[in-house]
Amino acid sequence: MPVLVMKFGGTSVATLDRIRRAAKRVGVEVAKGYDVIVIVSAMAGKTNELVGWVNETSPLYDAREYDAVVSSGENVTAGLMALTLQEMDVPARSWQGWQVPLKTTSQHASARITEIPPDNINAKFAEGMRVAVVAGFQGISDEGRITTLGRGGSDTTAVAFAAAFDAERCDIYTDVDGVYTTDPRICEKARKLDKIAFEEMLELASLGAKVLQTRSVELALRYNVKLRVVSSFEEQSDEAGTLVCDEEEIMELNVVSGVAYSRDEAKMTLISVADRPGIAAAIFGPLSEAGVNVDMIVQNISEEGRTDMTFSCPTDQVARAEKAMIDAKSSGDINFHDIVADTNVAKVSVVGIGMRSHAGVAAKMFQVLSDEGINIKVITTSEIKISVLIDRKYMELAVQALHDAFELEKATV
Amino acid sequence: MPVLVMKFGGTSVATLDRIRRAAKRVGVEVAKGYDVIVIVSAMAGKTNELVGWVNETSPLYDAREYDAVVSSGENVTAGLMALTLQEMDVPARSWQGWQVPLKTTSQHASARITEIPPDNINAKFAEGMRVAVVAGFQGISDEGRITTLGRGGSDTTAVAFAAAFDAERCDIYTDVDGVYTTDPRICEKARKLDKIAFEEMLELASLGAKVLQTRSVELALRYNVKLRVVSSFEEQSDEAGTLVCDEEEIMELNVVSGVAYSRDEAKMTLISVADRPGIAAAIFGPLSEAGVNVDMIVQNISEEGRTDMTFSCPTDQVARAEKAMIDAKSSGDINFHDIVADTNVAKVSVVGIGMRSHAGVAAKMFQVLSDEGINIKVITTSEIKISVLIDRKYMELAVQALHDAFELEKATV
Repeated sequence: MPVLVMKFGGTSVATLDRIRRAAKRVGVEVAKGYDVIVIVSAMAGKTNELVGWVNETSPLYDAREYDAVVSSGENVTAGLMALTLQEMDVPARSWQGWQVPLKTTSQHASARITEIPPDNINAKFAEGMRVAVVAGFQGISDEGRITTLGRGGSDTTAVAFAAAFDAERCDIYTDVDGVYTTDPRICEKARKLDKIAFEEMLELASLGAKVLQTRSVELALRYNVKLRVVSSFEEQSDEAGTLVCDEEEIMELNVVSGVAYSRDEAKMTLISVADRPGIAAAIFGPLSEAGVNVDMIVQNISEEGRTDMTFSCPTDQVARAEKAMIDAKSSGDINFHDIVADTNVAKVSVVGIGMRSHAGVAAKMFQVLSDEGINIKVITTSEIKISVLIDRKYMELAVQALHDAFELEKATV
Repeated sequence: MPVLVMKFGGTSVATLDRIRRAAKRVGVEVAKGYDVIVIVSAMAGKTNELVGWVNETSPLYDAREYDAVVSSGENVTAGLMALTLQEMDVPARSWQGWQVPLKTTSQHASARITEIPPDNINAKFAEGMRVAVVAGFQGISDEGRITTLGRGGSDTTAVAFAAAFDAERCDIYTDVDGVYTTDPRICEKARKLDKIAFEEMLELASLGAKVLQTRSVELALRYNVKLRVVSSFEEQSDEAGTLVCDEEEIMELNVVSGVAYSRDEAKMTLISVADRPGIAAAIFGPLSEAGVNVDMIVQNISEEGRTDMTFSCPTDQVARAEKAMIDAKSSGDINFHDIVADTNVAKVSVVGIGMRSHAGVAAKMFQVLSDEGINIKVITTSEIKISVLIDRKYMELAVQALHDAFELEKATV
């Protein structure tokens, strides 16, 4: 039978009632003849509670224990979803990551999926099970320890299962009804997109749009998984939500498709670094080993053999980054006067495949921000996006001004 | 190094502060030179919450999914305890049941431990790990599914580990400071026992004293595990609490050592059963298969080939018992007019090794209850205990009257 993957996020399984509602949607697909793999997140708020406990217990925690703790929320939802489906007479069972097994690297708290052997689950489908409910976000390392895939990892779990089981589609059920030109809570003119290209979604996701985890989109792109973002809270139809697909499938290509933002950015500056060949490697090597996701990097002009090095990373990795830098200084690998963290910044980005063939997007963006009196601290660009780091207090203003300037409220025909 | 097993119940790990306090006690034993195996329960209230969700989702739940859900609380505590110990510079890691592996039968929700291969944990002790924090209450079946050992199963986990690792002692840290002659909340004259015989503890545990799970005492008896019940909330000393030990080690043998009670009993009556040879097997076979723990049984005098059969079982198994009986009736295996459940009863028991050599304990018990106007519904006896089923409203009165009558407030010398 054809396989469908359906993923339900934390708000979609926040209560027993919502789990029942989600199970009904699964039942509809089973009735259509699909074997369904359901990926569930933890009930809304549960993972945050667990993460809070870990942080309070041990600020520089052993990531293996972090994973053992925070993965438990998904196990609860998986079992409850299986029971709910059974109550509806749909043959279902739950699977924890290690039971599948969903194999991952040993990079705890941000492990990568290495393999999903489909045999165990397929054997149960062959026996008449119609729904495999899989706890999202988690896997097992070669050492037999529980791993997690990073926040939002259940999206990645879902797409990986869709690829491993050659699923017809991967539906991501969430609390929004699709992908918007920007966050409607910040900009009331935000417009829902019916389709968006993989590459654009990838940039939007990595830039802070919380609809899909970046890696899930990467995976969908690589394995050409048909990915749909759809609301758990509205009537179901095959056309609902936003389809993430190849750009060839999209008629209306805007120069700019969306404006993304992220509050969770910190700007860190190493002051007066001894400038020498290999210094960047000496700094960013240890940061990478410490699990710090460095995003933007700026190096000041060098004076008298010393320079300032600025980079951005997620705010919750600041302590880790500082420790890595201080350790590297103690061991003599690098030399700097001071390390300064500024957590009072935000990142705002514009994204669009049309940029490839249109000049002047960056210039227009900088002009818009300048007209609003917003100072740009750091800039990075790619082929289809431009990001700037600005003072956090201007973030909403910047998003609204850019949305207006690029006329994103209008669908091109 | 010698091994010590320390088990912390739900109230002893109810908050991060309490986990820290428990970890400090573990640290004291590590400093003495022990390798320690810590068995943890879920934080107080967590398992009840999970059980509630399962019951609300599916009253006649698939016990495999029940186990997958309710085992998650212990995983959280195990990880948090390991992190807390690491913060105190004690090398520790967490183990979930399947990681040890703690192997069990496939009787979900009340599985029995079949094997605890010590190799994985011993290898880590050899590498310098000083504390293995094990999630209690859970294991893994031959089919690779998560099992649980029944409520209070963490005690059994602890004793089984003590046996498997030949531990010097198994300390059960809990919210009471030892074993009492009866529940001090019901009878203010209740007295703490310094020592109690395995057999007495076994009866008290199975009769509703909530200090230790019955099977943990059975296991301790069989493998001669030195078992100590001690409070998490008082100063630590090697003499604190109650030692559960061989009766030879106890100087002061009371005729009656304790009065136990249980509110969680239901009386079920099959009305007008066709009486024939093999009828008991036809009734109690299906009940056993359905996982119903039948305790007391009374069969009325048979009239015209029909009889009433009364038995007691835990209140939360009533639905299961009814279903099993109705199924057996539909399939023609038994025949009865009606099945009636009375959940408004309680069981009160007196226990004492001294009974073996003293006649008249039963007579005295019945007289005391009669003097208080309490009607006895069902009676069972063993060599060292007498239990009666009475109306629940008289339970406290019965406990107090029996405690007084047998003068349990006095220690014999």
